Amino acid sequence: MMGLMMDRPLLTTEILKHAVRNYRKTEIVTRTVEGPIHRYTIGDSEKRINKLANALVSMGVKVGDRIGVIGWNTNRQFELYYAVGGLGAVLHTVNPRLGPENATFVINHAEDKFLFYDTTFAPLVGAMRPHLKTVKEYCVLSDEENAGEAGKGAAIYESLLSGESDTYSWTDFDENTAVAMCYTSGTTGDPKGVVYSHRSLVLQSFATMLPTALGVTEGDTLLPVVPMFHVNAWNTPYSCLMGGVKQVFPGPRLDGEGIYEMLESEKVTYSAGVPTVWLGLLQYLEKTGKELPYLKKGLSGGSALPEALIRGFAKYDVELQQGWGMTEMSPVGTVNTLPPHIRELSADERIPYQLKAGRSLPFVDMRIVSPDGDVLPCDGECDGQLQVRGPWIISEYYKSEKPTLTDDGWFDTGDVAIIDEDGFLQITDRSKDVIKTGGEWVSSIDIENAALSHEGVAQAGVIGVYHPKWQERPLLIIVKKEGANPSAEEIIEFVKPNLDKIAWPDAVEFVDDLPLGATGKVLKTELRKMFKDYELPS
Amino acid sequence: MMGLMMDRPLLTTEILKHAVRNYRKTEIVTRTVEGPIHRYTIGDSEKRINKLANALVSMGVKVGDRIGVIGWNTNRQFELYYAVGGLGAVLHTVNPRLGPENATFVINHAEDKFLFYDTTFAPLVGAMRPHLKTVKEYCVLSDEENAGEAGKGAAIYESLLSGESDTYSWTDFDENTAVAMCYTSGTTGDPKGVVYSHRSLVLQSFATMLPTALGVTEGDTLLPVVPMFHVNAWNTPYSCLMGGVKQVFPGPRLDGEGIYEMLESEKVTYSAGVPTVWLGLLQYLEKTGKELPYLKKGLSGGSALPEALIRGFAKYDVELQQGWGMTEMSPVGTVNTLPPHIRELSADERIPYQLKAGRSLPFVDMRIVSPDGDVLPCDGECDGQLQVRGPWIISEYYKSEKPTLTDDGWFDTGDVAIIDEDGFLQITDRSKDVIKTGGEWVSSIDIENAALSHEGVAQAGVIGVYHPKWQERPLLIIVKKEGANPSAEEIIEFVKPNLDKIAWPDAVEFVDDLPLGATGKVLKTELRKMFKDYELPS
Repeated sequence: MMGLMMDRPLLTTEILKHAVRNYRKTEIVTRTVEGPIHRYTIGDSEKRINKLANALVSMGVKVGDRIGVIGWNTNRQFELYYAVGGLGAVLHTVNPRLGPENATFVINHAEDKFLFYDTTFAPLVGAMRPHLKTVKEYCVLSDEENAGEAGKGAAIYESLLSGESDTYSWTDFDENTAVAMCYTSGTTGDPKGVVYSHRSLVLQSFATMLPTALGVTEGDTLLPVVPMFHVNAWNTPYSCLMGGVKQVFPGPRLDGEGIYEMLESEKVTYSAGVPTVWLGLLQYLEKTGKELPYLKKGLSGGSALPEALIRGFAKYDVELQQGWGMTEMSPVGTVNTLPPHIRELSADERIPYQLKAGRSLPFVDMRIVSPDGDVLPCDGECDGQLQVRGPWIISEYYKSEKPTLTDDGWFDTGDVAIIDEDGFLQITDRSKDVIKTGGEWVSSIDIENAALSHEGVAQAGVIGVYHPKWQERPLLIIVKKEGANPSAEEIIEFVKPNLDKIAWPDAVEFVDDLPLGATGKVLKTELRKMFKDYELPS
Repeated sequence: MMGLMMDRPLLTTEILKHAVRNYRKTEIVTRTVEGPIHRYTIGDSEKRINKLANALVSMGVKVGDRIGVIGWNTNRQFELYYAVGGLGAVLHTVNPRLGPENATFVINHAEDKFLFYDTTFAPLVGAMRPHLKTVKEYCVLSDEENAGEAGKGAAIYESLLSGESDTYSWTDFDENTAVAMCYTSGTTGDPKGVVYSHRSLVLQSFATMLPTALGVTEGDTLLPVVPMFHVNAWNTPYSCLMGGVKQVFPGPRLDGEGIYEMLESEKVTYSAGVPTVWLGLLQYLEKTGKELPYLKKGLSGGSALPEALIRGFAKYDVELQQGWGMTEMSPVGTVNTLPPHIRELSADERIPYQLKAGRSLPFVDMRIVSPDGDVLPCDGECDGQLQVRGPWIISEYYKSEKPTLTDDGWFDTGDVAIIDEDGFLQITDRSKDVIKTGGEWVSSIDIENAALSHEGVAQAGVIGVYHPKWQERPLLIIVKKEGANPSAEEIIEFVKPNLDKIAWPDAVEFVDDLPLGATGKVLKTELRKMFKDYELPS
């Protein structure tokens, strides 16, 4: 027997309509690529989104067309999110850090028909243009006055909009229609495309706006440092509109000072970014002696949140909460919101819980599986491959020839994890980064975290290197903090109390920089190449 | 182009799984029908739900079967919610206040195969049994010790569960499958059946758990006074599990004292009920001099929330928030959460906003329409028929032969309303209760609210009565407060300053009780019969 409820689709346009109806006067503020601050309301933004939709239709955009964009977090990219999706077309956000070769690959692979870009990325687009096979028209996200050289051979965004009507009648379509796509910055092989549906992003917006997740609401101001060109800035351009949250887009200024200025002047209460970004901000605060009077909380994801950052921000009365997810998960799977009985503990007692990745959002199903494929208990002890399932988790990569899921329909995250009886997820490592030593597994992340607590350590990366007896042993690779000069022995002694004996690194090497991928993660593949023939001290 | 996300259904069982994973130790507390307090955790409840599912399968329950239940808010009915729905069967909650004739009608109309009932309702069930055509088996929600006479000719709930396994493997099915049904207590004609789907209740759970709606979360405790036998206690048995909220079920004790005891002993932070219930509690507080140290907020719906109640509870530091919805809307359409700029106002300045029904949840689309069918602007001035649309709004009544929706797919609520530019909905009247006088419309609710602010008035109802010149004029019908004795003239003078001249009642009549329907609303149809030949003073 079927329910007798209306068959109304979960479309992103409905989020926009909801926001216009209820939060019309709420602001959206942008630090523009040109420099000045741009501010308008959700009500204003709808008019520009309507203009853009009319312009896109005039340009010949059809249902299902892929529209590429290479841009900073700005109101213009925000407008593209809603206008492109509302038309039933697909916004393909391209990560400029992929570099010209990979960016060309993904644009050709997605078969983007149009390409929008910020002036900053004109050189990148220029380098790619001869190789882009499907792009019919280019559009620079600027105006007549500022486009300059960057606008050569391209339409100009503001000119496109200027003649159009500011009303548009959105039509309904299947909620499983594609709305956006993003390629993973795979450390091996070609990038792989993930295609989000209206349904998946709407459901994730509901889930992340729950008080048990981000916990922001009307009256809050959110600044996403996490880029809109990668997994939709963790879905915040959709979820903030659902929740009536003021958004502040930082544009191209992602350094500590640039972020600080916006946090301060717009009274931002919540921000979101990878640990590197939080570290940059913390260092800026420490250097300048400035305070964070408005910021209350922040979400950190993308890689493990080091204890030093949690403690560092706690001094400024800012609670960093860890989240975990993947491009393949739209991207949020877990958020670490502490339950009341943990919140009552002392700051020190809370730390072990804060270091976990948090608990799953509703409808994100998680299991851990042994190498033999047995499902293991969530007992806080067993670790195994983390597999996930849910309505905003990938079913297959775009144009993939191999199956993306396990035989029984789960997505293998490639992470090794432990889940405890209260649902807290703890990522122990990427499965390919685990160090296999003497028949046991050692987490590279645990060693990195232990090292990052040393005051002389700016960055840390751990890989397994060949050992004649133990198969692999951990090598700890360190970037020193400016002005600090710790010795290898000192660091090894420092990490020992926090690690099992089996995880004590056999050696420490110092480098000037760690190789980082397009989303800011340490590229362990590159580290392994650098230290391929490394010989451990015997 | 379609998204490439997993096709995972939105099933209520997933809410249960989420709660067990993340909020295992959170309590569910019941004042049992037998009297003692029963308490267990969400983890425990899952085991009993599994036992019940096994028992239902043993009894022969099949996908699509309707299972009737006539019960108080208790953990046993809560268990039925999840077990019946999880099997793909449909829980038909029967409102005992319908009386034997209507209750018989709805059970026969729904073709319930099994009927569960609390011992309290054994006489009602006994009276109906000879007339129930489809019920194959009865089950009393009790145990061997307490069933007594009420259990005659029926299975006993606890005995059914006792032999069963406490594990059950839920299977997946279409999210549009029916999960529950509830009949409207229509004031005219036969009750009409509304059939909820898993999808509709899951989506509403997400929406009502947003901070912009109820705003409860982990650490909060919610006591639903609103009955589980009518529109699923406003969906709280589902939403509270999604949000990790402790639930307190009041069982059969719904009087001021009974509710107060549970609010106090279980440190309830949020409650939900119709204005009559809130009034009963307020009167209890005033009589006893007791305080509400734990309760922070409450949701009032079902009929307009009088100003006197808002002010009355504000004295106890409890914020009553108004909600609006219908059985046909699963049932929540709007919740009144004040935006920050209103929250900053003084208590007096906030009142006009609090008297509105609030703003729509995401995906609830609202419009107001003139008698000619023109869509009117949301400008805070135009009033018209309120029509709604959304994924948890009815598409058709069960076995209905007439179309339920307008030609363009909207549900006409039967309410007359104004929507302002910030999205606030104001119900001015039921369209059939509007008083048509001299070519204009007067809201009966406005007059009732004005009268309810008088300290001598306990209840008020307004109807239009025949007038030779003006067609209709308002008659105000009053139940006096115990010990008070206001005169008709005094009340008319009292309401005048708060009403347009056209709305000043022509006369006041006093009665001992107002006729109430099965959900506690004043039956205007009955009032009209009582005052059919009423002659206004000339």
